[in-house]
Amino acid sequence: MLTIPLNSGGSSPFSKQPPLYEQIYRYIRGEIEAGRLAAGEKLPSKRALSAHLKVSQNTVETAYEQLTAEGYLLARPRSGYYVQRLETPSRAVQAQPPALPPDTPDIPKPAFDFHTGGVDTDHFPFSVWAKLTREILCEDSRRLLQAVHPQGDPTLRAEIARYLREYRGILASPEQIVVGAGSEYLLGLAIQLLGREKRYAVENPGYPKTRRILEGGGAAVVPVELDEDGLRVDRLRRSGAAVVHVTPSHHFPLGTVMPVRRRAELLRWALEEDGRYILEDDYDSEFRFSGRPIPALQGLDTADRVIYFNTFAKTLAPSLRIGYMVLPAPLLAVYRRDFLFYSSTVPSFEQHVLRRFLQEGYFERHLSRMRNRYKAQRDALLGEFARRDPSGKLRIQAQESGLHLLLRVRGLEEAAMVASAEAEGVRVYGLSAYYQAGTVPAREGGAVLGYAGFPPSSTEEAVARLAKAWAL
Amino acid sequence: MLTIPLNSGGSSPFSKQPPLYEQIYRYIRGEIEAGRLAAGEKLPSKRALSAHLKVSQNTVETAYEQLTAEGYLLARPRSGYYVQRLETPSRAVQAQPPALPPDTPDIPKPAFDFHTGGVDTDHFPFSVWAKLTREILCEDSRRLLQAVHPQGDPTLRAEIARYLREYRGILASPEQIVVGAGSEYLLGLAIQLLGREKRYAVENPGYPKTRRILEGGGAAVVPVELDEDGLRVDRLRRSGAAVVHVTPSHHFPLGTVMPVRRRAELLRWALEEDGRYILEDDYDSEFRFSGRPIPALQGLDTADRVIYFNTFAKTLAPSLRIGYMVLPAPLLAVYRRDFLFYSSTVPSFEQHVLRRFLQEGYFERHLSRMRNRYKAQRDALLGEFARRDPSGKLRIQAQESGLHLLLRVRGLEEAAMVASAEAEGVRVYGLSAYYQAGTVPAREGGAVLGYAGFPPSSTEEAVARLAKAWAL
Repeated sequence: MLTIPLNSGGSSPFSKQPPLYEQIYRYIRGEIEAGRLAAGEKLPSKRALSAHLKVSQNTVETAYEQLTAEGYLLARPRSGYYVQRLETPSRAVQAQPPALPPDTPDIPKPAFDFHTGGVDTDHFPFSVWAKLTREILCEDSRRLLQAVHPQGDPTLRAEIARYLREYRGILASPEQIVVGAGSEYLLGLAIQLLGREKRYAVENPGYPKTRRILEGGGAAVVPVELDEDGLRVDRLRRSGAAVVHVTPSHHFPLGTVMPVRRRAELLRWALEEDGRYILEDDYDSEFRFSGRPIPALQGLDTADRVIYFNTFAKTLAPSLRIGYMVLPAPLLAVYRRDFLFYSSTVPSFEQHVLRRFLQEGYFERHLSRMRNRYKAQRDALLGEFARRDPSGKLRIQAQESGLHLLLRVRGLEEAAMVASAEAEGVRVYGLSAYYQAGTVPAREGGAVLGYAGFPPSSTEEAVARLAKAWAL
Repeated sequence: MLTIPLNSGGSSPFSKQPPLYEQIYRYIRGEIEAGRLAAGEKLPSKRALSAHLKVSQNTVETAYEQLTAEGYLLARPRSGYYVQRLETPSRAVQAQPPALPPDTPDIPKPAFDFHTGGVDTDHFPFSVWAKLTREILCEDSRRLLQAVHPQGDPTLRAEIARYLREYRGILASPEQIVVGAGSEYLLGLAIQLLGREKRYAVENPGYPKTRRILEGGGAAVVPVELDEDGLRVDRLRRSGAAVVHVTPSHHFPLGTVMPVRRRAELLRWALEEDGRYILEDDYDSEFRFSGRPIPALQGLDTADRVIYFNTFAKTLAPSLRIGYMVLPAPLLAVYRRDFLFYSSTVPSFEQHVLRRFLQEGYFERHLSRMRNRYKAQRDALLGEFARRDPSGKLRIQAQESGLHLLLRVRGLEEAAMVASAEAEGVRVYGLSAYYQAGTVPAREGGAVLGYAGFPPSSTEEAVARLAKAWAL
């Protein structure tokens, strides 16, 4: 007879002692796994074991049924419970999860860091967002808990369509908009929609993530070089690509704005063959510091060849994972036929709060405030550089919009610029890192300084250190 | 000289009138697009035009600079502004976005619907969730607005690891966990991690979305049949697949629990060749109505061949898009090397609220409440069917756990079951739809009834209608 050491501490939710049936279950499972109860062996009857252990017959029955459900025992009607053959070495007892390197490697941080991924969240209207969140929480909870439409909440999409019409020169119906958990996710979805067997062209230099996402999605990626008007369509034509990813409103990191003539040329390229598409990434078009924002390329497209992407991660906060794409009608039909089974990737809470944020004009006001804030930050940087560079050795580019500057110093190579800055405790980013390996033109080079997340109070000190590093 | 009709309604934020510079910009752009201002033509000087229009010179300059930035004009230093050649037909004026079919096709709804995707959100502890949300909103806003770690908030991951250890028999360190916007997204990420050139096996019958997601990710998918112990490993071996997706705790829709012997056999299959992996989808393991939940297959894996998936969409609410996967250490190394550039897809708000929800024991309490609630719903259904089926024509399967039943009626084909139920206003789902097309065994067939989202008050009426439809 099995003698099982039982600890009857009760089975209340406040007790750490497992219930009696579970203690019996664990003991027998352990005996089977260790081979001490052999395959084919018959277990004591429920009545006999319960009398022996002084527990109720029900307790033993629950343990036996659990062991049967998991396949440790076989129940033979009118006969009893038998040990199953496991045909496996006894289970290795893992007492500890594996020891692993930490999430975040310990890279030494410089005193000042002009990284380009930053966003100034200090001016995010958090109290408004919190108020809207509290109000949304008081709404119909059932609606908040059910899944939203796979393309996103229709009212949110209507608000996005309105914004695009008023600010980006885009006429889109809410049905064309797909809201998703960031533009990375949506770009992955676009690859499924367009086909990963196609060749995808990317701007070179460009945002390295774009290439990695496209390759992660299984597409072949080919870099295409730029001239002073942006992506060269002649080179694109020769690349064999059927899809091109561009940032016409504001190229990263060169700052180029693609003029309307080049845009028209790009659209003509798309029309030369069936199945050609332009992926327009408009991610920081909102931050143009003089005049109005450059209208989107999509607004010129009358042939349904542009998929437009944008995100709220840069304009609001990186922690809100909300982006969207605008599908031309023929692609929307494909999406609806083949991909509508994907659930929306954005929690409905966030969608409803953002909807209210747009509806009540907070978004436009926030954009306007941030445009001023970023412009002041840019002006402060440009002013400091002008003051520290009396002999005019600096050349500054990409300053009209976006959230970074591109700097070159006469007589100084990029590697020396980056290394000497780092030695002074200021991290700047080499332009060549944005080129595909092996394609950096000899004449190119420079330092990219993102300033969106840079603390304004440090501007003077950081520029002074750079001036020293670069012997301005 | 250009005579531009200007409407000086002011340019305050409350005025709908565009600012004067924008009216000038729009007018000239329209003239260029329409070909009325020809390529090469010189525009009036800023001074001349401003005098002519009676606006400030600054206003004209802003308009000219915008047109130059967008490529409509060319600025020649010390000469003036010239119309650029557009080389494009005049822009088609889209006054309206395209007319599109509505988001949600208008399918007639039955009086009663036993669809399997439902979740009972009436018992979601919304007030607790709202309280936690309000408390999180009072925390450090800066932290809430910055992006979280790509794998998810570390404290949330620690809570998930604790839950997995205590309830699912899984020893995982928080570093192994990747939080993402639903298990669909995470399965797509797993394909990138394992390689889409591999062949993926899925259970047949099974959840049709799994197949579609794998195919959407670019993988070749092969169906593998089941016997009474779940997926047949002998067939898997012959399928040529290197990766298999399984639901060992509770098969959908057959309800099979994979016994420990078959689990060991599956793990042995994985070890027979390098690069073989098991994707364990544990999505409704929490809802087992007798005894304790079946421990996860991952807990038996001592050779790092199982990727474990679960989601909070079924246990909490579909609108919270939070799932997670547990990567074995060698795959984690690959993920960290190649895929850490993907941002977390879950807003940090949601992650922090869920963390608190887990930390403070609400999740376990909710699970326990829902288990009772779903068990009561199942019992009510089984009771009604027993009462309405005096001659015992019904056979019911998959009832021990999960959130659906599988019904068969002696002498009635599946198609007749589904059609006669629909005629009585009750929608049930044919089992054959969960088989890959062309592979439904002749003897198979039945009706799948999901009851998680079914209103308890309708149980009696719906079963009465089914009894009539099926002549029980």
